[in-house]
Amino acid sequence: MTPPPSPPILLTPGPLTTRSETRQAMLRDWGSRDPAFIALTAELRRRLLAIAAGEATHVAVPLQGSGTFIVEAAIATLVGPGDKLLVLVNGAYGDRMVTIARRMGRAVDVLRWPEDQAVDPASIGERLAADPAITHVALVHCETTTGILNPLAEVASVVAGAGRAFLLDAMSSFGALPIDLAATPVTAVLASSNKCLEGVPGLGFALVEAAALAAAAGRSPSLSFDLHAQWRGFETDGQWRFTPPVQVVAALVEALKLLEAEGGPAARLARYQDNFATLWSGMRRLGFQLFLPEGLQAPIIATFHLPPGLAFRPFYDALAERGFLIYPGKLTQAETFRIGCIGALDRRDFDRLLAAIAAVLAPA
Amino acid sequence: MTPPPSPPILLTPGPLTTRSETRQAMLRDWGSRDPAFIALTAELRRRLLAIAAGEATHVAVPLQGSGTFIVEAAIATLVGPGDKLLVLVNGAYGDRMVTIARRMGRAVDVLRWPEDQAVDPASIGERLAADPAITHVALVHCETTTGILNPLAEVASVVAGAGRAFLLDAMSSFGALPIDLAATPVTAVLASSNKCLEGVPGLGFALVEAAALAAAAGRSPSLSFDLHAQWRGFETDGQWRFTPPVQVVAALVEALKLLEAEGGPAARLARYQDNFATLWSGMRRLGFQLFLPEGLQAPIIATFHLPPGLAFRPFYDALAERGFLIYPGKLTQAETFRIGCIGALDRRDFDRLLAAIAAVLAPA
Ligand SMILES: Cc1ncc(COP(=O)(O)O)c(C=O)c1O
Ligand SMILES: Cc1ncc(COP(=O)(O)O)c(C=O)c1O
Repeated sequence: MTPPPSPPILLTPGPLTTRSETRQAMLRDWGSRDPAFIALTAELRRRLLAIAAGEATHVAVPLQGSGTFIVEAAIATLVGPGDKLLVLVNGAYGDRMVTIARRMGRAVDVLRWPEDQAVDPASIGERLAADPAITHVALVHCETTTGILNPLAEVASVVAGAGRAFLLDAMSSFGALPIDLAATPVTAVLASSNKCLEGVPGLGFALVEAAALAAAAGRSPSLSFDLHAQWRGFETDGQWRFTPPVQVVAALVEALKLLEAEGGPAARLARYQDNFATLWSGMRRLGFQLFLPEGLQAPIIATFHLPPGLAFRPFYDALAERGFLIYPGKLTQAETFRIGCIGALDRRDFDRLLAAIAAVLAPA
Repeated sequence: MTPPPSPPILLTPGPLTTRSETRQAMLRDWGSRDPAFIALTAELRRRLLAIAAGEATHVAVPLQGSGTFIVEAAIATLVGPGDKLLVLVNGAYGDRMVTIARRMGRAVDVLRWPEDQAVDPASIGERLAADPAITHVALVHCETTTGILNPLAEVASVVAGAGRAFLLDAMSSFGALPIDLAATPVTAVLASSNKCLEGVPGLGFALVEAAALAAAAGRSPSLSFDLHAQWRGFETDGQWRFTPPVQVVAALVEALKLLEAEGGPAARLARYQDNFATLWSGMRRLGFQLFLPEGLQAPIIATFHLPPGLAFRPFYDALAERGFLIYPGKLTQAETFRIGCIGALDRRDFDRLLAAIAAVLAPA
C-alpha cells in the first residue's frame, strides 16, 4: 500500500481541502482596527459582491461564526415580528431555517417536497396567491443534505412576481453555481467562507439589497445578529463591530484571489463538474448508485446508496487509513453516504480516491 | 532608524500578538466530523475547564464567533423570559450586556459606577435585598474599556449569598487573572480565544455550572446561541452542531499547550505584570499619566491620558511606521489611548516600544 496523503484529503462539504496558499495567509497577526486590516475588509466585501454581480443593488455584510449564524442573522434582521416567512423545504437545511424562525417567534409556513425532488415553482406561486400574509420566502439553493439543485431563477421570478422578499441559502453553491444578482431578484444571498470559495471556516456573509437592509434598522432581536448594525459599522469607519477572525478573513481574501486566478465561478464549476463526472463514472463501475436522479444532482456533493452488506463506519475508517475522509449521509429514510466534489481537488484526487475505494472493497 | 519589526507588534486587547507555533497550527485542514477533530475538541474542552478548576461542577461549551456572541448566548440560554438580570456597569462591555438583554426582551436592571471606580459589593447586596425579582447578576471581570479590575470574589460571594445566579464576562482576564471555580461561586464564565489565552480570534466559550445548563433546555430564543443544545451536541457524539472554525480550534489548543508550558495562568500573569511595570515606569518617565488609580489597574491593558498637544492619529501612525500598533481609547469623557500588556510579548518588546515612543515625541 502506498502511504496515505498526509494530512488527509477531505471529501466533505466543508471544512474542506484548501490550498496551501490560503492556509499560509493565516501566518500573520493583524490589528483589527489598523488601516491595513480595514483595507483587507473592504477588499473582502468588494470581492464577495462582485462574484454575484451585486455591486449596483446589494451590499456585502460579513459576520463571524458558522453558516447557520448568517442564516439566523438574515432572518432576524429582515423578517419582522409582523411578517410571515414561507420556507421551501426538501432537506435538513430548509428544516433548520424553519427551526430558527420558530425559535425566534416569527410566523412561519412550510412547503415540503421529498428529499429527492426539487422544489416546484408553480405550487409556490399558488401558496403565495392563497396567503397574502406571507412577506418573505426562503430557499436552499443546493440542499447539501442530498446535493440536490433547486431551480433558483424560476423560484426567484415567482417570488418577485408576487411581490415578496426572497432569502437564498447559497451556502454550498456560492462561488461555483451561477448567481447573478443583476438578472435574478434575490433580497439576500447567504453563504460562508468554507465551501465553494475554498476558504477556512469561521465566517459567513450576506449579500443584501441595500434598500431592504436600510429599512431594517433596530429590527433584529439579537445585537450580534443585527446585519443592519453590522453594515452600518462597516460603512461608518470600515471596522467590524466586534472582534473579527482576522486570520480567517485573510485566508478568505487569499482564496478569493485564487478563485479569480482560476477564472472565476464558471471555471470553478467546470472543475467541480469534472470532479463529479470522474467520481460518478468510477463509482458506477464499482457498483454504487446515486441517490438522486442524475438531472437533479449538483456537482457539489454526491449522495450514494450504501450497498447491502457495507457498513458506513468500517468503510469510513478503511478510507481514512488511506488518507481520504468521506462524509456520512444525512437522510432520515435511506442508508447513504456522501462524497464532496468541492475544495482544492481535481480529477486526479478522485482517481486516487476511486482506487482506494476499489482496494477497500476488494475481497482480502 | 532601525527597520520596523515586520509584521507589526500588536499592543492591543485582541486580536493580539500570537506565537508563531500557534499560527503554524493553522496550516492543516481537518475533517470536522473525523475522530481526530473530535479528539481535538475534547482536549479543548478539558483544557479550558482545567484552567478555572471547574472539572467537578462546570462544563465547557465553545461557540463559534466573537466574544460578544458567547456573552449573548449565555444570556439567551440562562436568563429566561420570566427572569430579571442585574448588570453591574463601569464600562462599555457592561453596557453591551445591557443592550443585548434589552434587545432580547429580557427584564434588565442596571447598577452604574464611574469608569474609574470598581463596582462596590455592598451596594450590590443592597439592590439584591431590595429587589427579589432579580434572578441573575452580570459582571465584567476586567473592564477592557479602561483596564479596571472588578472585585470578583467579593461580588460572587454577595450574589451567591443572596441566592442569585452569577454571569462573569472574563473576556480579558481568563488565562491570566486567577479564576477558581472550586472556590468562587460563578454560574457561567465567558471568555474568548484571542486575549490572555493568546489564540487567534474566532471562538468564544462558556464554562457553565452543569446543573444550571441542564435546566436550560429549549430556553434560548436563538438556535445558534443555544448553549444547552451546543453542550448536548458535544456530549452526544463529540461533534459541533454547526461547522466549527477548525483552524482556530487547532490554534487555541496549541496556545493552551503553550500556556501550560509557560507555567499556567500564574506564570502568564507574572509576565503580564512585568510587561505592565516596564510600560508604566517608562511611560511615567516620558511624562504620561495613567487614567486609573494604580491600585485598580489590571496588568491587561493600560489607559493613558493623551497629553495636551498630542493627537492620537498622528501618534498612532508614527508608532505604526515603527512597527507598533497601539489602541484607541474607548472613553466618552476623557481623551485617552490604550496600550495592551497581553499577548506573546515580554519586557524587551516594551523597552523597544518605549524607545519608539520617545523617538516619536522627541522634537525633530
Ligand atoms: C445549504 C447549507 N445551509 C446551511 C449550512 C450551515 O452551515 P454551518 O455548518 O457552517 O453552520 C450548511 C452547512 O453545511 C449548508 O450546506
Ligand atoms: C470584557 C470584554 N467583553 C466583551 C468583549 C467583546 O468581545 P468581541 O470583541 O470578541 O466580541 C471584549 C472585547 O474586547 C471585552 O474586552
